[in-house]
Amino acid sequence: MATAPAQATIGDSEFDRDTAVTPRPGEPGTFDAELSAGWTIIRAVNGGYLLALLGRALGQALPHPDPLTVSAHYLTPSVAGPAVIRTQTVRTGRTLSTGQASLLQYAEDGTEVERIRVLATYGDLDALPDDVRTTAVPPAMPPHEQCLGPSDGPSVPPIPGSSDITERLDIRLDPATVGWAVGAPSGRGEMRGWFGLADGRDPDPLSLLLTVDALPPTSFELGLKGWTPTVELNVHVRCRPAPGPLRVAITTRNLAGGFLEEDAEVWDTAGRLVAQSRQLAASPRGDA
Amino acid sequence: MATAPAQATIGDSEFDRDTAVTPRPGEPGTFDAELSAGWTIIRAVNGGYLLALLGRALGQALPHPDPLTVSAHYLTPSVAGPAVIRTQTVRTGRTLSTGQASLLQYAEDGTEVERIRVLATYGDLDALPDDVRTTAVPPAMPPHEQCLGPSDGPSVPPIPGSSDITERLDIRLDPATVGWAVGAPSGRGEMRGWFGLADGRDPDPLSLLLTVDALPPTSFELGLKGWTPTVELNVHVRCRPAPGPLRVAITTRNLAGGFLEEDAEVWDTAGRLVAQSRQLAASPRGDA
Repeated sequence: MATAPAQATIGDSEFDRDTAVTPRPGEPGTFDAELSAGWTIIRAVNGGYLLALLGRALGQALPHPDPLTVSAHYLTPSVAGPAVIRTQTVRTGRTLSTGQASLLQYAEDGTEVERIRVLATYGDLDALPDDVRTTAVPPAMPPHEQCLGPSDGPSVPPIPGSSDITERLDIRLDPATVGWAVGAPSGRGEMRGWFGLADGRDPDPLSLLLTVDALPPTSFELGLKGWTPTVELNVHVRCRPAPGPLRVAITTRNLAGGFLEEDAEVWDTAGRLVAQSRQLAASPRGDA
Repeated sequence: MATAPAQATIGDSEFDRDTAVTPRPGEPGTFDAELSAGWTIIRAVNGGYLLALLGRALGQALPHPDPLTVSAHYLTPSVAGPAVIRTQTVRTGRTLSTGQASLLQYAEDGTEVERIRVLATYGDLDALPDDVRTTAVPPAMPPHEQCLGPSDGPSVPPIPGSSDITERLDIRLDPATVGWAVGAPSGRGEMRGWFGLADGRDPDPLSLLLTVDALPPTSFELGLKGWTPTVELNVHVRCRPAPGPLRVAITTRNLAGGFLEEDAEVWDTAGRLVAQSRQLAASPRGDA
């Protein structure tokens, strides 16, 4: 599945090339970008990929390198093609800085249309104290080789209507959460799996912003078809992930009033909870 | 403890008076406000109260009335006194609209200092479909009369260094989560209790923004003293709460790297999950 050479590296990978942002000369804080068609699913550009792109721009605009908490409100659907990111430094402090960023694209008449607006607080993950007093435990799921990917035969089809993004990700789902793929959803709002980039690039704080929004929606396991457009997505990056595949567990507890929440947690190979996210998404219209 | 007449009403209560915002003539989207000393704790103005105030301004500025998801980044500590709220309409749609708001105060030299910046998506809670497909269940906690409030004697002291806000809230904590008050924290990052406004005003979407940040910090039950300043707070309001006391359960799973998350859920008397929140806060420095 990998289209790039095996074992790409952080800084030299498909993900890095496709999240590159170019400072616009003479306009401090403004970056040009190209939304790659490689991260689309049914024509929609993946929201986590877009968040990583915004995160990269903010990392360049702010004095601190790493996203600690990112809040994104999704306004209009993005499409592959040119985009501009406008950042604003809201506050800079000794250990934290806060910025704002907007992703915009161009309407046919050339006017700008805002796609996403983000508030984010950045820091330096490598400078954090190493105290850990956690009660969280990694999600119970089978080892990597017992989880299921697209190559595991027709009983595990790719995401319905899938497209280019599935080739760039190495996702292997917990068999307990793939009932939807064979018409037998569990009825539980859970989705779990191993996550990697297909070209072997290791995770970093920016790629975590993609990871939290990359698995199939929990609504599939609730027996709902159709898409769940993100209204708002909040991500906490809690430490720099160790190399190797990540474990991702997503839970929906409350589907009501036309919306659902998706809580994701991401664990690294060192057994640390490296990211937590929550999104509010619109419920799919169609029942199974 | 209630200082206002018993059973205040929505729109005519201490909370409503203290979250009033006044449109500034000639400056659309700008509101003047007075941060009341009544919602302070150890001189710091409560972050949930401030969020409610910002939420009220956005509700007046946007075409939709109710906060559905609110993301707040806390920049500098607020103090009681004059403030200004500047709002911007980011996008308006048929069912949702998104806005931004900044709370600012004045430095001694008169320059403005930004306290909080918020992104929020609003809608109309009364227009949402009534589908419910939830697996969430209300937190297990004793009935209201078996939970403990400040009047239950010296074994349940008010919040350390407490001040005016405790008189405006009617919080009764689950005895299982008040060990901290007698020097015997449970070691679990949990805090649960019943929440009401002391003057009897019923909950509404705006007061929920206060409710999610009103209980003692979970870090007390982890045996940590000192305060946990909020870096960022995200709130989903999922439906209009029924009258009567709310149940609030807050959980911290991961204290690491100098930060902790606090996940709150709020349930109404009709047994519905009316709000979910998550905040990233700085860990207290001192161990017990």
